Amino acid sequence: MRNLSKLLDRIQAPHGTAGLETQRALDQLTKPPGSLGRLEELARRLAEISGRFPPQVAHAVIFTLAADHGVAAEGVSAYPQIVTAQMVENLVRGGAAVNVLARHVGAKVVVVDMGVAAPLPPDPGLLSRRIAPGTRNMAKGPAMTRDEAVAAIEAGVGLVEAERGHGLDLIGTGEMGIGNTTAASAVVAALTGAGAESVTGVGTGVDEEGRRRKVAVIERALATNRPDPTDGVDVLAKVGGFEIAGLCGVILAGAASRIPVVIDGFIAGAAALAAARIKPEARHYLLASHRSTEPGARFVLDALGLDPYLDLGMRLGEGTGAALCIGLAQAAVRILGEMATFKSAGVTDRSP
Amino acid sequence: MRNLSKLLDRIQAPHGTAGLETQRALDQLTKPPGSLGRLEELARRLAEISGRFPPQVAHAVIFTLAADHGVAAEGVSAYPQIVTAQMVENLVRGGAAVNVLARHVGAKVVVVDMGVAAPLPPDPGLLSRRIAPGTRNMAKGPAMTRDEAVAAIEAGVGLVEAERGHGLDLIGTGEMGIGNTTAASAVVAALTGAGAESVTGVGTGVDEEGRRRKVAVIERALATNRPDPTDGVDVLAKVGGFEIAGLCGVILAGAASRIPVVIDGFIAGAAALAAARIKPEARHYLLASHRSTEPGARFVLDALGLDPYLDLGMRLGEGTGAALCIGLAQAAVRILGEMATFKSAGVTDRSP
Repeated sequence: MRNLSKLLDRIQAPHGTAGLETQRALDQLTKPPGSLGRLEELARRLAEISGRFPPQVAHAVIFTLAADHGVAAEGVSAYPQIVTAQMVENLVRGGAAVNVLARHVGAKVVVVDMGVAAPLPPDPGLLSRRIAPGTRNMAKGPAMTRDEAVAAIEAGVGLVEAERGHGLDLIGTGEMGIGNTTAASAVVAALTGAGAESVTGVGTGVDEEGRRRKVAVIERALATNRPDPTDGVDVLAKVGGFEIAGLCGVILAGAASRIPVVIDGFIAGAAALAAARIKPEARHYLLASHRSTEPGARFVLDALGLDPYLDLGMRLGEGTGAALCIGLAQAAVRILGEMATFKSAGVTDRSP
Repeated sequence: MRNLSKLLDRIQAPHGTAGLETQRALDQLTKPPGSLGRLEELARRLAEISGRFPPQVAHAVIFTLAADHGVAAEGVSAYPQIVTAQMVENLVRGGAAVNVLARHVGAKVVVVDMGVAAPLPPDPGLLSRRIAPGTRNMAKGPAMTRDEAVAAIEAGVGLVEAERGHGLDLIGTGEMGIGNTTAASAVVAALTGAGAESVTGVGTGVDEEGRRRKVAVIERALATNRPDPTDGVDVLAKVGGFEIAGLCGVILAGAASRIPVVIDGFIAGAAALAAARIKPEARHYLLASHRSTEPGARFVLDALGLDPYLDLGMRLGEGTGAALCIGLAQAAVRILGEMATFKSAGVTDRSP
């Protein structure tokens, strides 16, 4: 926790003029001012966050963290728990959706076992940061101890620190874990005060009966554990998950190093909300990639004051939305770097 | 017109099972069914339209057509008319926004002079299909003759035919022309029956007084010329533009050859609406890239029954929205081709 406290001290609201410089440069390009809309805003935010003009996006890394959830025993998912381990192997082999979309945008995927229940064979493509073989069932008691939550957050921080050595301009967040929309819904309900009913969706695809079961389980978990909404670590410990806490650490580390963090969907959003509860200034370093169809996503985005760049009806996680948004970020930076200016192209600018 | 009639006869609603095959393949991939949302729909539509499973997107070409508008004399744009020619040179040199975004997604940009007022130096990167040095002022009479409109449409058809020889899997539509949001607004008002007031926006960035002047000019053009809303060619001739008519031809040629056509923003949308009025079945071959901030874009999308993939507050044209959507189309096709299946990855599928 001492390491974490030091990290939190480093997270301050962005300062500097790189954002203004970016807008000034965008306004000299051969297009009506502002006509590229949110692509321009994206370029400006990348500069503001990083303090760099022009902003860099050459090294984009998606951290896809996996873990299991004791609450899966309550029958809250459409898939059995073993799928978490199977999907981690799929992620390591490059066959999952996020692998394909990351390749499409030239991003690296870092796959991390934060606490998968089934043992996973060692693989150079898999980082092991196991806190425990899955959380405990939050419907019956805390998902993890506070020490475990802090260890998971610090593991996430360590992932970013290690990756910075290879160059890291842009962070994407992703996850895999059977049962984790239930944990994320509980985290979001606890942190926002919204009812379990309003933040809980179908996850990987349960039916309405399954969704009602999820709601009841979340209500039970909140009543049993009484997480303290002012304490992000307490919420993560009592109703979170190892991958959610790990992503919280990834986000805090990104904020501390002024690296833009692209939030994926609902579960990464829950981690972001916890990060912003732990250190409110972390919010300034976040970009929301897309609007997940999970109903709780709206609560996350509203609470963080974020407007996502994409709205494609996606609900897969893994970092798939983050990957697509990284593609937009690259496009925004190329606009800034490659378009002609009115002056260089000899194009008449509008009358003042 | 005889050539055009033959082309129109070839445009039929898509048939075949490629779309179904695509959905079946998507449902075997290691993800909950439907969880990639509109990315899956995009893959399915590319297959449906082309009749090919898997659909191909290797050769994407954005046709950026430029022309001038006599109505610019009414002071409807924030920029002087010479900017059309200057921007064409910028497009040819690769310094415009669409060039950058097309490079980002690996698409080719075909730049075409459909009737720019100022003479343009010959350049191997510029196709000359000049109908006339700009349209006439539609506020005082028809923008062009019916023969000129047909010639512009046929020129657009010819562009697609020529490009097919180099491989053409996906068509993007783009344009450049000072004054062309005024022409497009008039076309959309004529074809949908919507009032000029409701379909007219700020274009490249006029103030509210300028917008009101645009509305008055469009109302005058419609009253003076009385375009027949049941006759797309008549509407294009009386209140359209050479680039809009040319794009109408590009769209009809794409539909005739079962090549998916990605509509850019408002002006390309007006061309698509005219194409669908000329041949209603052409509608099936269209994909809407993004929701332009021009208020008339909504009328176009509603009339065509299209839901855009992106909503980034853009209003630049040139094919910039189409380029970004081509990136999504490539991502969708890669998902289909590169993801592991439940079977190949040994991942347990949900219980039936």
